[in-house]
Amino acid sequence: MNFDLDWGVMISSALTISGRILLLLILFLIIKPIGKKLITSLMNQVATKQKLSEGRKKTLSNLLINVYNYVLIFLFIVMLLGIFNIPITPLLAGAGIIGLAIGFGAQGLVSDIVTGFFILIEKQIDVDDYVTAGGENGIVEELGLRTTQIRSFDGTLNYIPNRYIQNVNNHTRGNMRALVDFGIAYEENIDHVTQVLQKVCEEMSENPLIKEGPDVVGVQSLDDSQVTLRVIAQTEKNEQFGIERELRKRIKEALDENNIEIPYPHQVNVPKS
Amino acid sequence: MNFDLDWGVMISSALTISGRILLLLILFLIIKPIGKKLITSLMNQVATKQKLSEGRKKTLSNLLINVYNYVLIFLFIVMLLGIFNIPITPLLAGAGIIGLAIGFGAQGLVSDIVTGFFILIEKQIDVDDYVTAGGENGIVEELGLRTTQIRSFDGTLNYIPNRYIQNVNNHTRGNMRALVDFGIAYEENIDHVTQVLQKVCEEMSENPLIKEGPDVVGVQSLDDSQVTLRVIAQTEKNEQFGIERELRKRIKEALDENNIEIPYPHQVNVPKS
Amino acid sequence: MNFDLDWGVMISSALTISGRILLLLILFLIIKPIGKKLITSLMNQVATKQKLSEGRKKTLSNLLINVYNYVLIFLFIVMLLGIFNIPITPLLAGAGIIGLAIGFGAQGLVSDIVTGFFILIEKQIDVDDYVTAGGENGIVEELGLRTTQIRSFDGTLNYIPNRYIQNVNNHTRGNMRALVDFGIAYEENIDHVTQVLQKVCEEMSENPLIKEGPDVVGVQSLDDSQVTLRVIAQTEKNEQFGIERELRKRIKEALDENNIEIPYPHQVNVPKS
Amino acid sequence: MNFDLDWGVMISSALTISGRILLLLILFLIIKPIGKKLITSLMNQVATKQKLSEGRKKTLSNLLINVYNYVLIFLFIVMLLGIFNIPITPLLAGAGIIGLAIGFGAQGLVSDIVTGFFILIEKQIDVDDYVTAGGENGIVEELGLRTTQIRSFDGTLNYIPNRYIQNVNNHTRGNMRALVDFGIAYEENIDHVTQVLQKVCEEMSENPLIKEGPDVVGVQSLDDSQVTLRVIAQTEKNEQFGIERELRKRIKEALDENNIEIPYPHQVNVPKS
Amino acid sequence: MNFDLDWGVMISSALTISGRILLLLILFLIIKPIGKKLITSLMNQVATKQKLSEGRKKTLSNLLINVYNYVLIFLFIVMLLGIFNIPITPLLAGAGIIGLAIGFGAQGLVSDIVTGFFILIEKQIDVDDYVTAGGENGIVEELGLRTTQIRSFDGTLNYIPNRYIQNVNNHTRGNMRALVDFGIAYEENIDHVTQVLQKVCEEMSENPLIKEGPDVVGVQSLDDSQVTLRVIAQTEKNEQFGIERELRKRIKEALDENNIEIPYPHQVNVPKS
Amino acid sequence: MNFDLDWGVMISSALTISGRILLLLILFLIIKPIGKKLITSLMNQVATKQKLSEGRKKTLSNLLINVYNYVLIFLFIVMLLGIFNIPITPLLAGAGIIGLAIGFGAQGLVSDIVTGFFILIEKQIDVDDYVTAGGENGIVEELGLRTTQIRSFDGTLNYIPNRYIQNVNNHTRGNMRALVDFGIAYEENIDHVTQVLQKVCEEMSENPLIKEGPDVVGVQSLDDSQVTLRVIAQTEKNEQFGIERELRKRIKEALDENNIEIPYPHQVNVPKS
Amino acid sequence: MNFDLDWGVMISSALTISGRILLLLILFLIIKPIGKKLITSLMNQVATKQKLSEGRKKTLSNLLINVYNYVLIFLFIVMLLGIFNIPITPLLAGAGIIGLAIGFGAQGLVSDIVTGFFILIEKQIDVDDYVTAGGENGIVEELGLRTTQIRSFDGTLNYIPNRYIQNVNNHTRGNMRALVDFGIAYEENIDHVTQVLQKVCEEMSENPLIKEGPDVVGVQSLDDSQVTLRVIAQTEKNEQFGIERELRKRIKEALDENNIEIPYPHQVNVPKS
Repeated sequence: MNFDLDWGVMISSALTISGRILLLLILFLIIKPIGKKLITSLMNQVATKQKLSEGRKKTLSNLLINVYNYVLIFLFIVMLLGIFNIPITPLLAGAGIIGLAIGFGAQGLVSDIVTGFFILIEKQIDVDDYVTAGGENGIVEELGLRTTQIRSFDGTLNYIPNRYIQNVNNHTRGNMRALVDFGIAYEENIDHVTQVLQKVCEEMSENPLIKEGPDVVGVQSLDDSQVTLRVIAQTEKNEQFGIERELRKRIKEALDENNIEIPYPHQVNVPKS
Repeated sequence: MNFDLDWGVMISSALTISGRILLLLILFLIIKPIGKKLITSLMNQVATKQKLSEGRKKTLSNLLINVYNYVLIFLFIVMLLGIFNIPITPLLAGAGIIGLAIGFGAQGLVSDIVTGFFILIEKQIDVDDYVTAGGENGIVEELGLRTTQIRSFDGTLNYIPNRYIQNVNNHTRGNMRALVDFGIAYEENIDHVTQVLQKVCEEMSENPLIKEGPDVVGVQSLDDSQVTLRVIAQTEKNEQFGIERELRKRIKEALDENNIEIPYPHQVNVPKS
Repeated sequence: MNFDLDWGVMISSALTISGRILLLLILFLIIKPIGKKLITSLMNQVATKQKLSEGRKKTLSNLLINVYNYVLIFLFIVMLLGIFNIPITPLLAGAGIIGLAIGFGAQGLVSDIVTGFFILIEKQIDVDDYVTAGGENGIVEELGLRTTQIRSFDGTLNYIPNRYIQNVNNHTRGNMRALVDFGIAYEENIDHVTQVLQKVCEEMSENPLIKEGPDVVGVQSLDDSQVTLRVIAQTEKNEQFGIERELRKRIKEALDENNIEIPYPHQVNVPKS
Repeated sequence: MNFDLDWGVMISSALTISGRILLLLILFLIIKPIGKKLITSLMNQVATKQKLSEGRKKTLSNLLINVYNYVLIFLFIVMLLGIFNIPITPLLAGAGIIGLAIGFGAQGLVSDIVTGFFILIEKQIDVDDYVTAGGENGIVEELGLRTTQIRSFDGTLNYIPNRYIQNVNNHTRGNMRALVDFGIAYEENIDHVTQVLQKVCEEMSENPLIKEGPDVVGVQSLDDSQVTLRVIAQTEKNEQFGIERELRKRIKEALDENNIEIPYPHQVNVPKS
Repeated sequence: MNFDLDWGVMISSALTISGRILLLLILFLIIKPIGKKLITSLMNQVATKQKLSEGRKKTLSNLLINVYNYVLIFLFIVMLLGIFNIPITPLLAGAGIIGLAIGFGAQGLVSDIVTGFFILIEKQIDVDDYVTAGGENGIVEELGLRTTQIRSFDGTLNYIPNRYIQNVNNHTRGNMRALVDFGIAYEENIDHVTQVLQKVCEEMSENPLIKEGPDVVGVQSLDDSQVTLRVIAQTEKNEQFGIERELRKRIKEALDENNIEIPYPHQVNVPKS
Repeated sequence: MNFDLDWGVMISSALTISGRILLLLILFLIIKPIGKKLITSLMNQVATKQKLSEGRKKTLSNLLINVYNYVLIFLFIVMLLGIFNIPITPLLAGAGIIGLAIGFGAQGLVSDIVTGFFILIEKQIDVDDYVTAGGENGIVEELGLRTTQIRSFDGTLNYIPNRYIQNVNNHTRGNMRALVDFGIAYEENIDHVTQVLQKVCEEMSENPLIKEGPDVVGVQSLDDSQVTLRVIAQTEKNEQFGIERELRKRIKEALDENNIEIPYPHQVNVPKS
Repeated sequence: MNFDLDWGVMISSALTISGRILLLLILFLIIKPIGKKLITSLMNQVATKQKLSEGRKKTLSNLLINVYNYVLIFLFIVMLLGIFNIPITPLLAGAGIIGLAIGFGAQGLVSDIVTGFFILIEKQIDVDDYVTAGGENGIVEELGLRTTQIRSFDGTLNYIPNRYIQNVNNHTRGNMRALVDFGIAYEENIDHVTQVLQKVCEEMSENPLIKEGPDVVGVQSLDDSQVTLRVIAQTEKNEQFGIERELRKRIKEALDENNIEIPYPHQVNVPKS
């Protein structure tokens, strides 16, 4: 550096420095309200899309604006120091290490939000859907950017951070299948049993909750003590469990009426020779 | 660099250097108390929200202020060296490596706090809730930013670092379900059994702990040796286990009275032909 | 720096600065529409290949163009500051930390897209294929860059982020195998049973859904209470389950006709000596 | 660079250089003993808190002071080279790579210490507690910053690096539960059995180790061959196993006296029709 | 900077700048075709080694050349900006963040290719080999740098990204073992049974598919109800299953002929004393 | 840069350059033997502590000195280039990437050594201890910084890289427990059986290998067909298995003498009503 | 920068530039053959140690020399550009990103080689050893730096990348244990049975493959239907399976001769009271 105690230089340098500070000030005065508006409008959009409550929306946008302001102030101080040629790398390094530490910890948070965002955008889940997600099974009570709340059938409320949701199994997207397996004795005539069951199926098919009539699909397996037959129906969503219970009851009664027994486990007792 | 043994230059350079040091000093004198106040007020807020004990609050804020002071002193020294043009990169590199090493280790800690923060904010858990979280099942005794304490029903106190809490299953958010499965013999008439049980359910439904009367929902499965029926009720939270025990006792007695036996496992013995 | 209050220098420096700004402006005016066109045409290609709906295509390309514009504006501001010698490292560092944080979170997203891209390119899956992927088993309903939708046979719609798809098991690429195992008593003559079954197989082989006639492949195992035989056929894709049911029924009837019984579990009862 | 063989410049430059070296020396002479004292006092504090043996304390503080000295010497050499304008980036890069390699390896170590620190601070474990932690179950023998030693009941001494301790289940924090399940025949009258047991419970409740009298809580399940009843008591910590054994013995004897048999598994033998 | 409105300087500076641009241009004109040729020839080599179809080869090399061109253009622009002293760090930082994001996502892709490369080079798998890899079991249909296609025996085509292939179990490298275990009653004389079996083995050993005659290796275990013997043979690759079925049938027939029964499970019935 | 063809400047610059090279040379000549001695003495210490064989010690220290020399030479060349103002960043970047690649691969190695170091320092394992570690169970044959060798009881020698050792279960630190569970019939009088067993325990307690006399601790469980009692003793380390065998034999004989039978599984046969 | 159209300066600058290029050239001409020789000799050493085939050695060293040459050329170009003051950071950044991407992918490769290196150095495995490693069990066929080939006993050839080898269980390092467990009835006298078995053991102990005579170690457990005794012997390596088969046969015969029966499972049949 070349410092001639020349007043001209000093003035000029003072001028350029004050010019830069001015420019910096103007820039920050412009950027600050723009960022604030951007955050608010973004939050409004997200809030509308997700039907966030007014309170939660305010909490979140205040939080974001606070963080934004602190970052701006930090940048302003650092740039000012830079203009005065005071070394700023240590400051930045310090902020970097702290930022990194927080970043690692907050990684899960960002991951929650990204996953939550796509679950919302792709409409994989709606409130009141019956889903299996993140190891929990039940009715969705609330969808959030960070957590999804599912109410299990035993009344438990499950909070699932979105990042733990891998596959979403939605049981409320279209008709569901009702499936009843039951065994008959090896001695029974399969065709006869099928006829008996087909009659039950025809009666059941008038149920408006059933979309595609129950049908006997055939011999599912040749088990140790019984021949297993399978009956399948397509039902309205969430009605499959009721239909299965009804089918089971009617099949049992029809078999009883026709003297077709559901067999107990068999064992051949070989006398010791 | 251009060093003319010109006193003017030296004075000017000395002036700028001392000016910078002054500026630095002033800055630090301003920043130090601000940071301290910020930490204290933040700790107060968190402490109030979480109802931290006075002692723990002080410990934590002292710890933070200490760390803050050490960081400030380190930055001050480094910037001073920078002003005197003594190379500071090695110092920074050294601090960076140590910081990184600690950062990796402390990653879990930050992750604990972030998760704990959201569990508190989203009120997923309250003290005295009956929850399943992080593989432990019991009553919440204490909520912390770092650990959650759950007392199991066998008396064990479980300390769970918050980062190991993935899904929170809260069993104290609304009514719970009492569910009783039991078997009847294939020979019994399902309609008759259902009538008998429905009478038991009606008597039980007068229990104020039951929110939604117990109902026989139907044939749950056709098992090897029995037809399984299911009875379901909605109870006050945490009362489901008692109601289930009561239901089991009453169902057993009602079946006995009406000579409907809960069947033992059956096996058909086939003589060796 | 050498600041002589020499107007010539100032003019020249002003000239170079304004020259650079001009150059920068021109560059950005050139780059902006090029990038926009590139994104649009790329989106069009991908959309055509994947038969994306018009709506989704627009959403995606708008999203990308928005991101692109924000990045350009950020770069423009930063470069402008650079030309005026206002320190920009803090700005960059700030952006870097935020970028990194988002990057970690978005890592899964990129991973989804890369995997999805290759599944599409290598045509591992087509809509209406019967596949097992990412732990779900069913008919593919929709293929996306981020998620694949598989409809299970029980009616559930499964949304699988592509990154969770490791192996793809496609059950609709060529003929499938129908396999029936069943046991005969140790007393039966294996050659005789094989003859009986081979006749069943010959009848079945006229079924046009069967590509390679069912064959008795031999003694699969010597089990506790039975000798297990195996019959295998090659069928049209997705017809294997029906053929297996048919085979099971026919084999059972053929064995009955020839008095070859499928044995129950045996146990030798040794009297206490 | 502008090198005029001007002696003035050379002297001035020599002066500034020697000035910087002096400053550096002074700084190091100040920092070295401060760091040493800091380490020693810190070690003393930790040692007192953890009741470290004198020997271990010395080993650790010597180790730390050694590392500290080596780092100081390295920094001193690097800064000296920097003052003489000898390029130092390669040196730093070399140290960085080695540091990183060690850092990755030592990550587990730091993680051990952070976890250990919080287990100590939060007093999750005390010596002689009966705990389950890190997959081991037993009495704590020693608590360390790096490892926890748990003696299993079979005499094995388990060394658990603290990072493998996730949840701590402390069985010595408050009363423990003694729980006895046992079955009665379906033919028994539940009320009668309850009366018999309640008398046993009343006798047991005089045991001073029992904090909350044993109670028959009711019908726990309707099993295949028996109705299962449950008795629960609250005992002094670590006495639950003894109380359970005593309860089992007394219940068995009371049932015997009242001719209430604990049933064997039942099976209905159906003759082949 | 020292800007004297001296035309000489400006000319010289203009000269050096244009010289650099020229140099840059020449360099790029040289490097571009060299890189293109290198990619093409490399692709040709890989394609030949792997017997890639002509179409796939072209797709891949076009893709690579495109990426290469974009990178060159980006570098050219950045270097040009650098020559004009327009700050380029923001551009680089932007590219770096995007690159990193893509890099993380593409990590799996690179890992696929590296693993695939070694599977090909070390000839661990050939098309038509019977292998177990990546959890799938079947005949290899196609080997790729990114995925391996294995056809399961039930007709399913499995696409396995190479990175999920850990151990490769190749069942087509040398003779395979046929192994038959079967039980005889505790009452049988082991030496006598061994003689009977050895005769069966001798007959079987004339089968040209058997490389090393079947042998009775001895008493494999003393089980609950039977003494288990083991017979082992070495067969041509992929013939082990057929040989095992044949062996099982022949052993069963030989034991029948010699009145050596394969025993059913035994149970001693102790009368209640 | 300002290049006046002024010989003075050139001489002075040559002087400073040669001065720096001299300084560099002197520094390296000093550092090289110091590092070598440091490595050798460190290796000697470690070797003595661990009782490394002379051969292994030499191999290791030669390896380390080689690596050290290569690093020094690399640094010397790079610094020399730096003094001549030849750009060195590419060299460093190249070395950095290679170093990083190796670093990632060698991460496991460092992790092995750190873990091994602490296992040695904390004396968690000694040669000839009976331990369970890293999934292997047996007698320790050799302790190393990288691997631990454990000989299983079936004669297998297991090499465990230290990083796979998580918990160390050392079965040779203090007395071990011998534990024998056995069942008596529900018909037996528990007090009578306890007396009989207590006599066996008293006889056994004279065995010098038993540190704390075997005791009947009580009713361990009420099982399906038997009341299970438990006997516990404290034995010398590694003698627990022998003592358990002896106890089992004596208990069996004592029960036989007193006509207390160990019951077989019971089953109630209910006739089909 | 100060550009006086002064020919002297230009010449001097041209001189220094050409001087640097010369230096650079000389350096590269020296370094290139040295590196090549180093690689070749290193490869030779490794090849000799591992007994690599000549072909594989050449492939590998050619590969390495190619990579080395490309790196040198890249460095040369970059340094040349640096001397001409053409900005090179973008080039480096580009190379860095690509290098990182490859590095991540190749991480597994380096990890393979490091693990393989130590398996070879520590002689954990030799060709023809019977080992369990990386989940595979069999005879080692080939040891490589990247993969280990193990031939399973069913003839399968397993390729295990070395990084998947965690613990190595080597069954060919010293004598192996033959262990036979078998049950006798509760009615038998344990001492008598032990005498009978001891005689069998004495006969067997003359077998030269047995290193330490088979011994009856005692009562291993009191099972449901039998008292289990254990016999143990030490055998030559890889002979344990044959010895076990022989022992089983002889024990069975000895028990038969002395009318000691190996009991079948027992069950007490309680008549329904």
